[in-house]
Amino acid sequence: MFESAELGHEIDKDRYDKEEPELRAALLKAQYELVKTDKFPVVIILGGVDGAGKGDTLNLLNAWMDPRHMSTNALRPVGDDLVGRPPMWRFWHALPANGRVAVFVGSWYSRPLIDRVYGEIKTAKLDQHIDEILRLEQMLADEGTLLLKFWLHLSKKAQKKRFKELEEHSSTSWRVNATDWKHLEMYDKFQSTAEHILRATSTAEAPWLVVEGGDERYRNLTIGRAILDSIRRRLDEPAKPRGVRAAARLTPIDDVSVLDRLDLSQTIDKEVYKDELAELQGRLNRLSRHKRFDKLSVVCAFEGSDAAGKGGAIRRVTQALDARKYDVIPIAAPTDEEKARPYLWRFWRNLPERGRMTIYDRSWYERVLVERVEGYCSESDWMRAYGEINDFEAQLVKNKIVVVKYWLQISKDEQLARFKAREATPFKNHKITQEDWRNREKWDDYRTAVNDMVERTSTNEAPWTVIAANDKYLARLSVLRTLVEALDKAL
Amino acid sequence: MFESAELGHEIDKDRYDKEEPELRAALLKAQYELVKTDKFPVVIILGGVDGAGKGDTLNLLNAWMDPRHMSTNALRPVGDDLVGRPPMWRFWHALPANGRVAVFVGSWYSRPLIDRVYGEIKTAKLDQHIDEILRLEQMLADEGTLLLKFWLHLSKKAQKKRFKELEEHSSTSWRVNATDWKHLEMYDKFQSTAEHILRATSTAEAPWLVVEGGDERYRNLTIGRAILDSIRRRLDEPAKPRGVRAAARLTPIDDVSVLDRLDLSQTIDKEVYKDELAELQGRLNRLSRHKRFDKLSVVCAFEGSDAAGKGGAIRRVTQALDARKYDVIPIAAPTDEEKARPYLWRFWRNLPERGRMTIYDRSWYERVLVERVEGYCSESDWMRAYGEINDFEAQLVKNKIVVVKYWLQISKDEQLARFKAREATPFKNHKITQEDWRNREKWDDYRTAVNDMVERTSTNEAPWTVIAANDKYLARLSVLRTLVEALDKAL
Repeated sequence: MFESAELGHEIDKDRYDKEEPELRAALLKAQYELVKTDKFPVVIILGGVDGAGKGDTLNLLNAWMDPRHMSTNALRPVGDDLVGRPPMWRFWHALPANGRVAVFVGSWYSRPLIDRVYGEIKTAKLDQHIDEILRLEQMLADEGTLLLKFWLHLSKKAQKKRFKELEEHSSTSWRVNATDWKHLEMYDKFQSTAEHILRATSTAEAPWLVVEGGDERYRNLTIGRAILDSIRRRLDEPAKPRGVRAAARLTPIDDVSVLDRLDLSQTIDKEVYKDELAELQGRLNRLSRHKRFDKLSVVCAFEGSDAAGKGGAIRRVTQALDARKYDVIPIAAPTDEEKARPYLWRFWRNLPERGRMTIYDRSWYERVLVERVEGYCSESDWMRAYGEINDFEAQLVKNKIVVVKYWLQISKDEQLARFKAREATPFKNHKITQEDWRNREKWDDYRTAVNDMVERTSTNEAPWTVIAANDKYLARLSVLRTLVEALDKAL
Repeated sequence: MFESAELGHEIDKDRYDKEEPELRAALLKAQYELVKTDKFPVVIILGGVDGAGKGDTLNLLNAWMDPRHMSTNALRPVGDDLVGRPPMWRFWHALPANGRVAVFVGSWYSRPLIDRVYGEIKTAKLDQHIDEILRLEQMLADEGTLLLKFWLHLSKKAQKKRFKELEEHSSTSWRVNATDWKHLEMYDKFQSTAEHILRATSTAEAPWLVVEGGDERYRNLTIGRAILDSIRRRLDEPAKPRGVRAAARLTPIDDVSVLDRLDLSQTIDKEVYKDELAELQGRLNRLSRHKRFDKLSVVCAFEGSDAAGKGGAIRRVTQALDARKYDVIPIAAPTDEEKARPYLWRFWRNLPERGRMTIYDRSWYERVLVERVEGYCSESDWMRAYGEINDFEAQLVKNKIVVVKYWLQISKDEQLARFKAREATPFKNHKITQEDWRNREKWDDYRTAVNDMVERTSTNEAPWTVIAANDKYLARLSVLRTLVEALDKAL
């Protein structure tokens, strides 16, 4: 796949001097339109052979476009600052907002490529990384990111020649180092591994664009034009029709679902509750001070019917914990920084460090609950969310983050009683709004959404705990017991 | 100062049951008004004796107020996740936005208190910490934060009794640990150190409120009422008059200032420039690969007249660096998350990790440049900013962050020529806006602001480099040379 990038492409100076100013002006104009409309974010990945001009291209883009609306990223998916977050955290962290351009010279491709070439991972492991990358890029594309991937190529001969030229002059000799020469010796291994990766990750939404790196003028015009065309096309295309139909889904024809199997009639005596609560909180506290607790982290997601008692249950958990060990993240309206990025971004940004717990009061599941029911996203958007969420949680679990997910269910009658009680109590007043009454009218839609959610996202690694919450004491004990057992198992 | 918190305050159940619901309702109402108006942020610090109810108060606040608009923080000013940032970074990170409440149980007071009690620092060092805290809190108050500091007190006898009670029951015994007993033995030392700290940090804007912790009902009502009153008062008070006059300032009566001493007429030959540029870039690159480079970090701030060539100079720096080593942060309009916090917050959040460089294209100095000249903030705001900025940079330098600050100056004629050239070149068009022409009309105001800025913020640790930039080649070489020399010295 590198053949056409070894043809010795060249552009003469006259043509370059003529075309360059026009291209720059057009590129800037497109960038400004992008900034002004905030239509989508652009991610540009620069990969390729050392000496083929990755660094020069990076500088070129910063000179040609307005760097105030761009960021340059050279992250490797490792580092101390992860402090327990999954490797992809650094890339999520660096995702550009709508209207902005992010250039990555070190990207999610760097580590798998290097590790495979150095023989630190086998092809099977590499293919797992490739799968992860494909899912990430698919998600980015679905969320509206324009993803441009350039591979700058040089033949082995051209690479050698380039290094020699750079070394000859004292002013450029610092640009070649021992690693470069070492990698030149491993050229064939690099090329075959790169080819494998590039083939597997060239998709319709984000194909690799292989560019011959030998002639600077050819390289500049080629890359500049490709970026211009892609941004231009996306700016000019009409907004995507929303509500695209997803494939068929199964609905249980006997109308029996997970929620129907719940026994909401159980109750517990208050004195028994008090004793059990204290015992479970004690166990939880001891587990959180376990010497291996610092080797893992915990993510809890609380979802449930309105008025099911999420807040009260969360407080019974935090009461047992040292305040240094947890964060509670309530999910309300997103900030503008969050709105301008894929919906999972706000959850990635709050992932706990090692030895800490993040409790989400409502979570990424809002995508398949309220956003689905209220039609805030299209059917294909929430349908793909199940897979995206499973991928997200799999990355957490793989990285020694214990994932605990609760659905607190109450009956429709119990909800009505609680709504009325809230209206009657001055300091509970704020907990009940017109929105709650409106949501209640969509009870059945939510029920379907919850059943689908549990069915599609209860995995071995991150199972749902569905809790009968008509009796709030029982519900709190279940919440604590589930957490204690999950921690017990993990420690 | 703890006498009135050892009187055995108590509230009986009847009175509590009567007053509690009213207080909760009023507190929630105030919180909702705060959320709705986004008027100011609230920081609540809970300090005090172990067993006096810090944890319980934290839970209480989360139960009484709406936790979706609050955060709980228990940060200590140490930790792996600092990766080279100054200790205060964690607190800056956790500062609440307007309209939100942040409760800190571990705060900027924790470390100095503990370190002094354990004899790890002397009183002189403690007093340095106290000075830093006073300046931080002054800045928060000036920026509009409502800061409430509660100290929960127990006499030695009461503390001992409390621990025994907790240990007696298996359901609460986990709440007392070995450290608690150890600290009880050190009670007197803790008390005298705390008294010293509390006295020194009780200011008009943020006095310590000492609360007797023995009786839960007394404690709850006292703290709840104090929070309610403070928030209520701030909500009800009329907006502060802006433009308060600061104290007198000196203006040089001979009208000779730093900028006048610059010789803008120097030039350099292009060929000489090319050679020197390559040499300096080579030196910079080698320094950035120095084995001790990973032990420090670098912050560069670029300021200058419009069209002075900041962008071009920055590119000459980044060209010499591995893209993994730097970030360029352009300072444009703040996001809503940034706008809702003190103006230095956006700079704190982008501080580099160890072994990395953050280049700010425009910086925190905008506060005393454009915000001063355009009247975006009051005179007292920008006058206090000099001190706040010096504090900020001192923290960086103390933490092995090399701070390099550039002012690029061109003449008024040169600026006119560059503006016209920009208008005439299609791909430079975007660089010139009506705003530039408007700023130009305020040339003399900016000149005064720059002179004041250099005079007040050029410190030994973080000096200004004022650069004659009429010749852009010379300017770029100066920029690089300054950076190379600063790194040379630091390494």
